[in-house]
Amino acid sequence: MLLPKEDKFFDLFDRQAENLVHASEFYRKCISESTITPENVREMHEFEHYGDELTHTIINTLNETFITPFDREDILSLANRMDDIVDNLYLLMNRFHLYSISKPTEYSKKLADTIDHSTRALQKTVATLRSNKHMKDTYRHCVEINRLENEGDVLRDEAISNLFANEKDPIVVIKQKELYEIAESTTDFCEHVANLVESILVKNN
Amino acid sequence: MLLPKEDKFFDLFDRQAENLVHASEFYRKCISESTITPENVREMHEFEHYGDELTHTIINTLNETFITPFDREDILSLANRMDDIVDNLYLLMNRFHLYSISKPTEYSKKLADTIDHSTRALQKTVATLRSNKHMKDTYRHCVEINRLENEGDVLRDEAISNLFANEKDPIVVIKQKELYEIAESTTDFCEHVANLVESILVKNN
Amino acid sequence: MLLPKEDKFFDLFDRQAENLVHASEFYRKCISESTITPENVREMHEFEHYGDELTHTIINTLNETFITPFDREDILSLANRMDDIVDNLYLLMNRFHLYSISKPTEYSKKLADTIDHSTRALQKTVATLRSNKHMKDTYRHCVEINRLENEGDVLRDEAISNLFANEKDPIVVIKQKELYEIAESTTDFCEHVANLVESILVKNN
Repeated sequence: MLLPKEDKFFDLFDRQAENLVHASEFYRKCISESTITPENVREMHEFEHYGDELTHTIINTLNETFITPFDREDILSLANRMDDIVDNLYLLMNRFHLYSISKPTEYSKKLADTIDHSTRALQKTVATLRSNKHMKDTYRHCVEINRLENEGDVLRDEAISNLFANEKDPIVVIKQKELYEIAESTTDFCEHVANLVESILVKNN
Repeated sequence: MLLPKEDKFFDLFDRQAENLVHASEFYRKCISESTITPENVREMHEFEHYGDELTHTIINTLNETFITPFDREDILSLANRMDDIVDNLYLLMNRFHLYSISKPTEYSKKLADTIDHSTRALQKTVATLRSNKHMKDTYRHCVEINRLENEGDVLRDEAISNLFANEKDPIVVIKQKELYEIAESTTDFCEHVANLVESILVKNN
Repeated sequence: MLLPKEDKFFDLFDRQAENLVHASEFYRKCISESTITPENVREMHEFEHYGDELTHTIINTLNETFITPFDREDILSLANRMDDIVDNLYLLMNRFHLYSISKPTEYSKKLADTIDHSTRALQKTVATLRSNKHMKDTYRHCVEINRLENEGDVLRDEAISNLFANEKDPIVVIKQKELYEIAESTTDFCEHVANLVESILVKNN
């Protein structure tokens, strides 16, 4: 055992954050290139599955570790809340597939960009957990994630407004509206994790 | 006062869990026998009401108890989160009634089975709260509840996919889609409680 | 510095609660008078924006304060959860506008009354935070907020049931159903904050 115990958790959270960034990059690519194929849905499922593995590793590590860098229940919450994000990306990708939407709209592309920016800002936020000496950086990244969540809200509202104005088929309205809402909720989940990181650092300040 | 104070809370949580199991058994029966009658909706309301009473008893007991088996706010959260599950079962049953759906689909029946399995696994999880010496059992039940939540997701996705493929009336699509989603969310609520039990035991380990 | 540090937080929470009451009064007025104009949506956005400013002030104050009246993470949660309510009121008002619903239904008016009663009861609950000597008052206000949340559920269910019985245009069903659901969720958010206040007082009892 060369690494101090604390580093194990930070490494695992960083890997969760990295998996998130990879998943959102992949999602953005599939949306922008209109390649929501069964193979790509399966590939997104791999990101979701790897997220589950990391979460279980964090729980097992917690059960074997006597001294933790911050409260045990916060470690558990952070692992579960980060896992929610990749779960939601898989749900979203799968929903495109189940709804047979092969050509995502411009709004879906813009939302995919916002999601991608949000997971990247989240990765930076999670990286600040290793020390409470960079609270200003944490706070700055959290403000950015909050801004992206607002951007997601505005995009979703514009998209839904446009949908009701131009689409007359109620079945298509139901499908597209839900895809916009699930996409936007990914930025909400990123904000929840950012708030949690902020809360952990505030508590341990 | 014969019982040690701690036992009061465990007994109350066990009663909440038992009420949940009874409510989900009753729901499953009404769905499988297509008997979503006003009388049965009222009977489900009784389960919901009894759940509220147990929650209030827990809060009152908390206010009269000086030493608690684990953190006061966790006792409050656990009581409220368990109550969410029976509230959701009543919401679901009532929604079937409001939507005049008298013959539940095969997917609704399968989801009722998954919900029933999940509340039973939850009852076992809650029973492990009395001691942190059975963490492996807790963890095993939590893994099962997580598996059932995934099963619920897959069932809901299949059901909705099938609905869009075969149902042309958008009003029926709106109703059935929501019934599948509320049903599935019951397994999410069970997972939240399981995570909370795990978190309480991790904290007190 | 004349005020003791603790008072700063209670003053800020009171201002958040007051902002909520003003926002819900304004919402109720716009709904009852059918004046969901772009100007009034912008005015509601001002309440939302002022809520954000108060939340940021609370976070900044937290970072500059060594001794806090209760746990730092509870202060953060309370600020964020109160902010959720005014965010939801803006979302709701904006949705009416985006959906071009210029004449709210009787059910929307009744829900606006319930929301208004709920934020007023919440203001009283938040005011009890200054001391744990008024737990009975806290509990009484929480029971009232719980009652209003149930009232909101019943109103939403009646409204949706009525909608499906009388409205044949699925696009209108989608819009009105969502407006009822977002309105009702405001009373859920009030209940979350009431539960949190109760939990903070229970913990510090």
